Amino acid sequence: MFDSSNTISSAEAEPPLFAGIDLGGTNTKVGLVDNLGRTLAYVKVPTAIEEGPEAGAARMGQGVKTAAAEAGVTVAEIARVGLATPGTMDLSNGMLLDPVNLPGWHNFPIRDRVAHHTDRPVSYANDAAAAAFGEFWVGSGRQYDSMVLLTLGTGIGGGIIIGDLALNGETSHGAECGHIIIDCRDDARICSCDQPGHLEAYASATAVVARTEEALAAGRPSSLSERRAAGEELTTLMLAEEAERGDELSLEVILETARYLGIGIVTLLHTIDPGAVLLGGAMTFGRHDNEIGRQFLARVKEEVRHRAFPVVVRHVTIDFAALGGDAGYIGAAGIARLAHQQH
Amino acid sequence: MFDSSNTISSAEAEPPLFAGIDLGGTNTKVGLVDNLGRTLAYVKVPTAIEEGPEAGAARMGQGVKTAAAEAGVTVAEIARVGLATPGTMDLSNGMLLDPVNLPGWHNFPIRDRVAHHTDRPVSYANDAAAAAFGEFWVGSGRQYDSMVLLTLGTGIGGGIIIGDLALNGETSHGAECGHIIIDCRDDARICSCDQPGHLEAYASATAVVARTEEALAAGRPSSLSERRAAGEELTTLMLAEEAERGDELSLEVILETARYLGIGIVTLLHTIDPGAVLLGGAMTFGRHDNEIGRQFLARVKEEVRHRAFPVVVRHVTIDFAALGGDAGYIGAAGIARLAHQQH
Repeated sequence: MFDSSNTISSAEAEPPLFAGIDLGGTNTKVGLVDNLGRTLAYVKVPTAIEEGPEAGAARMGQGVKTAAAEAGVTVAEIARVGLATPGTMDLSNGMLLDPVNLPGWHNFPIRDRVAHHTDRPVSYANDAAAAAFGEFWVGSGRQYDSMVLLTLGTGIGGGIIIGDLALNGETSHGAECGHIIIDCRDDARICSCDQPGHLEAYASATAVVARTEEALAAGRPSSLSERRAAGEELTTLMLAEEAERGDELSLEVILETARYLGIGIVTLLHTIDPGAVLLGGAMTFGRHDNEIGRQFLARVKEEVRHRAFPVVVRHVTIDFAALGGDAGYIGAAGIARLAHQQH
Repeated sequence: MFDSSNTISSAEAEPPLFAGIDLGGTNTKVGLVDNLGRTLAYVKVPTAIEEGPEAGAARMGQGVKTAAAEAGVTVAEIARVGLATPGTMDLSNGMLLDPVNLPGWHNFPIRDRVAHHTDRPVSYANDAAAAAFGEFWVGSGRQYDSMVLLTLGTGIGGGIIIGDLALNGETSHGAECGHIIIDCRDDARICSCDQPGHLEAYASATAVVARTEEALAAGRPSSLSERRAAGEELTTLMLAEEAERGDELSLEVILETARYLGIGIVTLLHTIDPGAVLLGGAMTFGRHDNEIGRQFLARVKEEVRHRAFPVVVRHVTIDFAALGGDAGYIGAAGIARLAHQQH
């Protein structure tokens, strides 16, 4: 995802400088970012979950030092560090509570431990909120005053920005947009969180695969069956490829997914009424650079156009996010910058 | 709704003073409110839609003068006026656009005309947002940092407060909580706005009556049939009365309504994660003061408890609103106060 051509030299950098850390289940991304949101240096360190959270916080501290050294600046020149992690979390107390993707990292005071290992003040944010803030600051959302980001992957994450506010909620559970209910009926699909009818149960990559499996099991003919018979695992990438080759079922599932997303987006429009809704995340057809991605986006917009208030439809922009996997650390740095300005 | 025992004398009043105006389809409420949200004087003037918006704005100006006189203060002592109207509206330009309940009051610069007729600066707000702000300032929401108000009546209105921000959205269509989608299926119920699956199509008073009609038409036995045979109109009040007398269908419809509301509330909790969700509006069983109201609220909470993230359920308060029909003008005054403080 990271395109090193975006990196600037420290001579060009506009101070103050910030570090952004995006903690993931496999890797942790650390970037040194200037006051205009430009990356000076970037390092990726293994999260190494099995070594526990204290070792992880130390590695993050080391990552910040490495990034600073690479950019030819000292850690003391970093005004503030932004740290983004998955939930569940208690933002106001800086605690990682019970993150599904970080087994064993429970009830850990991650904000203060990262502050210890970097010797810098740390702002703590939800990873989806940080990604949204990154897009809002320097990505696809930069010309809007408010914005919703949906990240489509194994699950569906969300970030809501209103003015300079990344909406966290009272219990750090705001903007959990994958868990809005789109189907109130008793036989609705079940979400990864075990609840029925959530958007994520229809439109995450996991849900797309499950819905496709069901159609195949029901006997729908598809070139997907041949690839699976050859031992390949069914993925959204495979769906996108087969749809592009003309497979009817693959395209149908992809466009149905877009329809469900459009329905979820209408609920967000009628609640938040933002300037833009951006689609990010790793799901293969969630990008401009292929025909299926463009069809997917067009179908999302069509559903929204049919269902939302006309004035809202006229004003809102629905598009793909721009920063890819960099959004998290850039946004974390942006949230640190905001805190720095307010201090 | 207005309880004159809440009125204070101008000698007790804490300056600065504000006027709040709540424009309705039949009556316009005008209150003089002090810096602590207490009402000094209150007048209700007919909206007289047929005389047009300019005459209406003049009557609002007269209402403010009357309220000031009644409190023994001059209009010049009013720091700022808050004006709340139904939508559609363009808040930033102070325009009433195309309000369904005010036929003929189209594209009218209501903010500036009310400023002209009161000779005071005017802050303009959506009526549901104003009601929410009233509850947030001095009503059931006063101890929370963020809050969602759902007003249950002919339709379902909404107001979202986050910190001191009444969420208006980019096109003044934020917090249209009646129009979140709870049923994505093709045969979902149709909303008053002609779109399928909206919360309002299941849980507004209109929807409650429609769902009851359907059950009666399908041959469900109920004491409601006898009252209708006697020429009475089916209303939510009749449902509450018959439910209290033991009519099974009436209670079932009321508790189903609570279930639908609970589902909509879960979507709002997972999006906003507020400190409180309050239920207001004229719907009869939306109150504490009767057994059916208490059962209704308990059923809403039960649905939320089953469906929302446990940590959110533990923290959020779900309750009835406190200010009744006064919430709108008090909240409008509160929004004026906020603007006054920021100027």
